[in-house]
Amino acid sequence: MNNDFVHTRPLGITMGCPVGIGPEIILKFFQESGPCKNPVVVIGNLDILKKTADELGLDNRIISWAPGERIVPDTLPVFTTGQLFPSKLKWGKPTITTARAMVHYIEQAVNLIQEGRLAGMVTCPISKIALQQAGSPFPGHTEMLASLTKSRKFRMMMAGSRLKVVLVTIHEPISRVSSLLSVEEIADCITMTVHSLQHDFGIRSPRIAVAGLNPHCGEGGMFGSEEEICITPAISTYKGPGNISGPWPPDTVFHRAVAGDFDAVISMYHDQGLIPFKLLHFKDGVNVTLGLPIVRTSVDHGTAYDIAGRGLADPASLEAAVNMAGLICANRCEEAAL
Amino acid sequence: MNNDFVHTRPLGITMGCPVGIGPEIILKFFQESGPCKNPVVVIGNLDILKKTADELGLDNRIISWAPGERIVPDTLPVFTTGQLFPSKLKWGKPTITTARAMVHYIEQAVNLIQEGRLAGMVTCPISKIALQQAGSPFPGHTEMLASLTKSRKFRMMMAGSRLKVVLVTIHEPISRVSSLLSVEEIADCITMTVHSLQHDFGIRSPRIAVAGLNPHCGEGGMFGSEEEICITPAISTYKGPGNISGPWPPDTVFHRAVAGDFDAVISMYHDQGLIPFKLLHFKDGVNVTLGLPIVRTSVDHGTAYDIAGRGLADPASLEAAVNMAGLICANRCEEAAL
Repeated sequence: MNNDFVHTRPLGITMGCPVGIGPEIILKFFQESGPCKNPVVVIGNLDILKKTADELGLDNRIISWAPGERIVPDTLPVFTTGQLFPSKLKWGKPTITTARAMVHYIEQAVNLIQEGRLAGMVTCPISKIALQQAGSPFPGHTEMLASLTKSRKFRMMMAGSRLKVVLVTIHEPISRVSSLLSVEEIADCITMTVHSLQHDFGIRSPRIAVAGLNPHCGEGGMFGSEEEICITPAISTYKGPGNISGPWPPDTVFHRAVAGDFDAVISMYHDQGLIPFKLLHFKDGVNVTLGLPIVRTSVDHGTAYDIAGRGLADPASLEAAVNMAGLICANRCEEAAL
Repeated sequence: MNNDFVHTRPLGITMGCPVGIGPEIILKFFQESGPCKNPVVVIGNLDILKKTADELGLDNRIISWAPGERIVPDTLPVFTTGQLFPSKLKWGKPTITTARAMVHYIEQAVNLIQEGRLAGMVTCPISKIALQQAGSPFPGHTEMLASLTKSRKFRMMMAGSRLKVVLVTIHEPISRVSSLLSVEEIADCITMTVHSLQHDFGIRSPRIAVAGLNPHCGEGGMFGSEEEICITPAISTYKGPGNISGPWPPDTVFHRAVAGDFDAVISMYHDQGLIPFKLLHFKDGVNVTLGLPIVRTSVDHGTAYDIAGRGLADPASLEAAVNMAGLICANRCEEAAL
């Protein structure tokens, strides 16, 4: 591994919505995580972090940082971008100002990666509704990042130590899933999953299971035929590296993946993948965006406005997301150095 | 507990398809399970069991048993019903004769329960296709048992020590699930689940989670509205005992149930419930039929024709199904004695 890469360029954590749990989990992450394998900086707001630390009685050494500066050990370095007045904000109550700020953190992080100042980014949660209030045309983080990096195709992987799932459809009604599946969508998903497992996770020949859509994969057409119409053809269409198999009955494929038969499971819809994933990785799940030229991982939870500012938030997912971003950066760097 | 009940009336295991893995798991169950809490007999065929034991090198003491007879300790008592010629049968190759035999075992077991000779039944797997070949009008075990016991409403519960799920729809294409959900179906499911948890599992005031259908329960109608249309109204309609809550986001409700928040989760479709269930109870899951006047549990796997006769079958699910049938009989009996 080329350690210089990791050590000269830190990972950037975007602070997310300033009145959500982002500031709190950042403070706790810097306190609780052991000596960090990767230097980490925050793209957000120093005043908000200081106010949060005061309110929660946390004694982080929060210092200002500018791109290119050395990271001082045992500090929480913050690149402040934009102005916020903490006294005017209320936990759990986003405003147009906070919404614009959270968008700005993301844009700045992407700029800094593209300028070679950051190795990759880890995002704290934003609010979809606040995003709309800020006038953003994007439904979420991922679409915004795809636009900022001019990426046409992207996918969501949920990654943990026991299970990795990649979703073909995401936020769609169950009744629409069938009509949204196509050979092209599934084949794209296979291609991107193989690419990520090889380059991000260092698995030379990934073993990928493609789940069916229907119970028992439709039992020969008795209850559904999407398996024959698009899933099997997508698997046949794919001619790249790796070992791709399926369609597998959805109710047993995740057990097999956890038992070690597969490196990832391609899931046809949100809950098919997220039900088993969250059962195993409720606290330490990481969302990885496939298809971007930059490294981006994210916590696996929302802004949690209901508990913001109350000291109840758990930094476990942020810690896992930072570690995974570090791993992906190291794997990509190792490859680049070969 | 009224021990007399359990000891005077044994549980009956139906042998299932004679050329599937039923005979093998029965032999292994009687060998491997410790001293049985419940006396158990087999409703099947002595010759087939003896031949299977010979072929697999198992030394069970297989003896003939007739209803009402005493159970001899450390034996495998078989009530043989109908004639089969083992030399004419091949593993994994059902015939009309084997199909009729397997139907007959089920009918006999129901008769013996209704006559008060058996406490309840545990079913080994049958083949749906063989069932059709035998001229049976039923798609599976459960429908046949409902007809034999004149039960109009019935549901499938998958039960294990960590999780219990009850399914609103079962073997249906994903694309049809939405149109099959109704306030009445979901409310029936709630009623039957409460009844079973109270009377079969001895939980006085069951805490039942009703899962949503769509990701994040549709997020206020953004991706699906079945939650508002039928799931919430079904929960409101229900006025019986227990603590019924929901709709809960499908991707976290199972984690919460396993963590102890709920006694069972009502699932809208097959894989919503079976993906988490099989992740936790791959080997020792039990299928319990709710809504029947008799006690019936079943193994959680099929005839496995591909491995029949090869000594590879695992009796763990049969052992769990026998223990659970024993528990349910004891709970019902304890109630009846009060």
